Amino acid sequence: MTTLDINCDMGEGFGAYTMGDDLALLDHVTSANIACGFHAGDPPTMRRVVGAAFARGVQVGAHPSFPDLQGFGRRNMQVSPNDAHAMVVYQVGALSGFARAAGGRLNHVKAHGALYNMAAKDRALADAIARAVHDVDPTLILFGLAGSQMIAAAEALGLRTASEVFADRSYQDDGSLTSRGQPGAMIEDVSRSLAQVRQMLSGSVRAVSGRDVPLRAETLCIHGDQPGALDFARSLRAALQSDGVVLEAPRHG
Amino acid sequence: MTTLDINCDMGEGFGAYTMGDDLALLDHVTSANIACGFHAGDPPTMRRVVGAAFARGVQVGAHPSFPDLQGFGRRNMQVSPNDAHAMVVYQVGALSGFARAAGGRLNHVKAHGALYNMAAKDRALADAIARAVHDVDPTLILFGLAGSQMIAAAEALGLRTASEVFADRSYQDDGSLTSRGQPGAMIEDVSRSLAQVRQMLSGSVRAVSGRDVPLRAETLCIHGDQPGALDFARSLRAALQSDGVVLEAPRHG
Amino acid sequence: MTTLDINCDMGEGFGAYTMGDDLALLDHVTSANIACGFHAGDPPTMRRVVGAAFARGVQVGAHPSFPDLQGFGRRNMQVSPNDAHAMVVYQVGALSGFARAAGGRLNHVKAHGALYNMAAKDRALADAIARAVHDVDPTLILFGLAGSQMIAAAEALGLRTASEVFADRSYQDDGSLTSRGQPGAMIEDVSRSLAQVRQMLSGSVRAVSGRDVPLRAETLCIHGDQPGALDFARSLRAALQSDGVVLEAPRHG
Amino acid sequence: MTTLDINCDMGEGFGAYTMGDDLALLDHVTSANIACGFHAGDPPTMRRVVGAAFARGVQVGAHPSFPDLQGFGRRNMQVSPNDAHAMVVYQVGALSGFARAAGGRLNHVKAHGALYNMAAKDRALADAIARAVHDVDPTLILFGLAGSQMIAAAEALGLRTASEVFADRSYQDDGSLTSRGQPGAMIEDVSRSLAQVRQMLSGSVRAVSGRDVPLRAETLCIHGDQPGALDFARSLRAALQSDGVVLEAPRHG
Repeated sequence: MTTLDINCDMGEGFGAYTMGDDLALLDHVTSANIACGFHAGDPPTMRRVVGAAFARGVQVGAHPSFPDLQGFGRRNMQVSPNDAHAMVVYQVGALSGFARAAGGRLNHVKAHGALYNMAAKDRALADAIARAVHDVDPTLILFGLAGSQMIAAAEALGLRTASEVFADRSYQDDGSLTSRGQPGAMIEDVSRSLAQVRQMLSGSVRAVSGRDVPLRAETLCIHGDQPGALDFARSLRAALQSDGVVLEAPRHG
Repeated sequence: MTTLDINCDMGEGFGAYTMGDDLALLDHVTSANIACGFHAGDPPTMRRVVGAAFARGVQVGAHPSFPDLQGFGRRNMQVSPNDAHAMVVYQVGALSGFARAAGGRLNHVKAHGALYNMAAKDRALADAIARAVHDVDPTLILFGLAGSQMIAAAEALGLRTASEVFADRSYQDDGSLTSRGQPGAMIEDVSRSLAQVRQMLSGSVRAVSGRDVPLRAETLCIHGDQPGALDFARSLRAALQSDGVVLEAPRHG
Repeated sequence: MTTLDINCDMGEGFGAYTMGDDLALLDHVTSANIACGFHAGDPPTMRRVVGAAFARGVQVGAHPSFPDLQGFGRRNMQVSPNDAHAMVVYQVGALSGFARAAGGRLNHVKAHGALYNMAAKDRALADAIARAVHDVDPTLILFGLAGSQMIAAAEALGLRTASEVFADRSYQDDGSLTSRGQPGAMIEDVSRSLAQVRQMLSGSVRAVSGRDVPLRAETLCIHGDQPGALDFARSLRAALQSDGVVLEAPRHG
Repeated sequence: MTTLDINCDMGEGFGAYTMGDDLALLDHVTSANIACGFHAGDPPTMRRVVGAAFARGVQVGAHPSFPDLQGFGRRNMQVSPNDAHAMVVYQVGALSGFARAAGGRLNHVKAHGALYNMAAKDRALADAIARAVHDVDPTLILFGLAGSQMIAAAEALGLRTASEVFADRSYQDDGSLTSRGQPGAMIEDVSRSLAQVRQMLSGSVRAVSGRDVPLRAETLCIHGDQPGALDFARSLRAALQSDGVVLEAPRHG
């Protein structure tokens, strides 16, 4: 039986600002990555989204970032691994407070934006993140780009991992994502996206070169801030369920 | 047998900035209130001070504040009780992450600065703080000004409390502290401070009017940022120990 | 000949966050109050909105606030007048940089949110704001609630002022606004709003008690973040222009 | 007649935090680079240090940084040139407000920390900074590492520049500074520092390889946060004055 987690970044408002339609998307995902205040997400927003996720049976994860509200955590920063460790402990701890206050617990951690992208390639940074997660709670599941240093670092520490794949991004021969700037980076056609997800579930992805590249697909990221996001999520769920795929979050030990 | 906790605010540096001499004072206290990033205390500082406290057998508590680094958390802010609840959950959670990462756990929570002072008198704010602490972990001990609304709010929720007293501040007939601006607010003479602490341990304090006012003394606050702080801490410890007072932190259930 | 300025708060996005529809409203106002980074408005947003205002011949003013992005500058803070002075100099200076970079200059300053409301009643705070504006540029025009301490403080320093009135708020007998919490605080009916503005232009307003209260109306505030804001702005302009009112910003000396 | 400017970074406290001994160093420099709030320097600190510099006849410059208080502006950030332009306009404008409030004006701009180092090599970033300075006030003098892209970018826009050299850092054959991590990067011996400055004033520096490398020396940076900084500043001044060197800031047109 094939299972797949569907995750989405959530709680990315801040104070008077809103972003995305969190509550609508919660009905279509099995895991929510919730911003922890560094790139988005002030405390009342975190509390509200954690509560809404639990109310729908969606698993909750921390979505830690570089401290960069102005840049929404998307700008690379040269933070030492030692400082990155402390930042991740802080943010995972903070979200964990809201999970406990809502009577539940954290299930996973997924780094955000530039921290996610840098840790996919930089092993020292990936090690620091993995160690932070392990230090706070060794039963947490670490999400990372399939085939990345983030996954390797987490496995080296004995953490449970979930390899993340994307429905709306094209891939290179080495299993990395085509950079957003490049032509063909985004897959906007829903049926092509769905075809890519189906192939991923059988263990590979067709790279832009036409080559089939092996890939582990355990959690699929969907984005709430794009036009048609909700419709796409709905179609994807329906198609996968009719394929007999079980949509559910991985569960900590 | 009389017991007393001695607490001190710690970890109040931020990034390149230092404040106080945390490591020296750790040898003279039984509880450390550690800043959580809102008025002071960036993640690497929090990690370092939590580790140093545990290494010396000092109990660790969260020291949450209004979000006001520029004002060091000392400026009153009109934050709704609902938002204050979220801020406290966030900060207690964050420090709790470092405690777990260091192999220990939080023992207590004490509000900082303006949040502490406002919650001493404003029951709705005190209730919000107490509820936040209870929501994250009902075995945490809440520190508050002896006789304040903070203590009353915590007791109403069934939280264990520690009533806080000051060696270097004079008191009014209603058990409140003389405002810092007023003459005679500060007690700078060590022997007078010590005499005040001894009287407090027997259940009262002599107010500036000369009247003896009943007072519960469970935890004594000392300040690390004043000249002679270390010497005063040393003298106080020695005197209380020769009186047979047991210096130890209250312990969660 | 009657003249009236129409002002609107603008540039209240931050980083990835947007708020209101700045460019649309610019066609309907004669003065733009632009956020300066403390409650909203990061540098690229400030630059963009200043440029857009100048391109439409709209006068540009600084909209300084307490440092409270999380609370959008709407929470009262007990900031000393001395610190408030420095905050206002900083923010007026920063926006002034963008005005000069765009080949223009600042025309006015209007405090935001809690700082505006507190300075309407607190003369020491009002004096600090007025002094800051005067220190940076004594030809700047200070906007404040009609009849408030802010206007009195500015006049005492010899600053040119513009007394601000509201079309969508009801008034009390003392010329103050009915608090938002109270019934009847908001005027949602467009024709009633227009009638109120017309009466204001003749020097008085009908308070909720039915009494006519004298009032100086030099600049009218409209809000961009309410449903129908654009339609209301359009109707108001048309009606006032057909009344022969000249819509234009006050100009510095 | 040889002239040399001596500059120092100042005003690097924040809120309750202090750093360095600003007032003491002001007696030994001719230009002060004042932090603008992004890596250090809250508004009251900026006001105080600007006032103290003017009172001693020291020229005042803005010291803009990446927005990174936690990292003291020392961490590289991948900020787009367009955003960097806005950040510099903002910070130069803000400090300019304090200069005008104190009855003076800005004389120069010098980027801080990681922004300074990145702009020394990255021409697009250097162009953005130079354009920002030029946009706010084309008579401002831009300080940059001697021989760097920052100087080249400023000259291309017609800005007046001051080439900066260091007394306590060793140089490479290409005129760049030896990285701090490397052995021999720092010159701690006062007489060797002085000898290096004297050679620089004649147009070259002896690199660590032993080769003499041409170098333009117009402003010398001294650091206030090192032990012995004050004594070194005093000795340096005395020696240069006895050499007949005129110590004065470059002046805008």
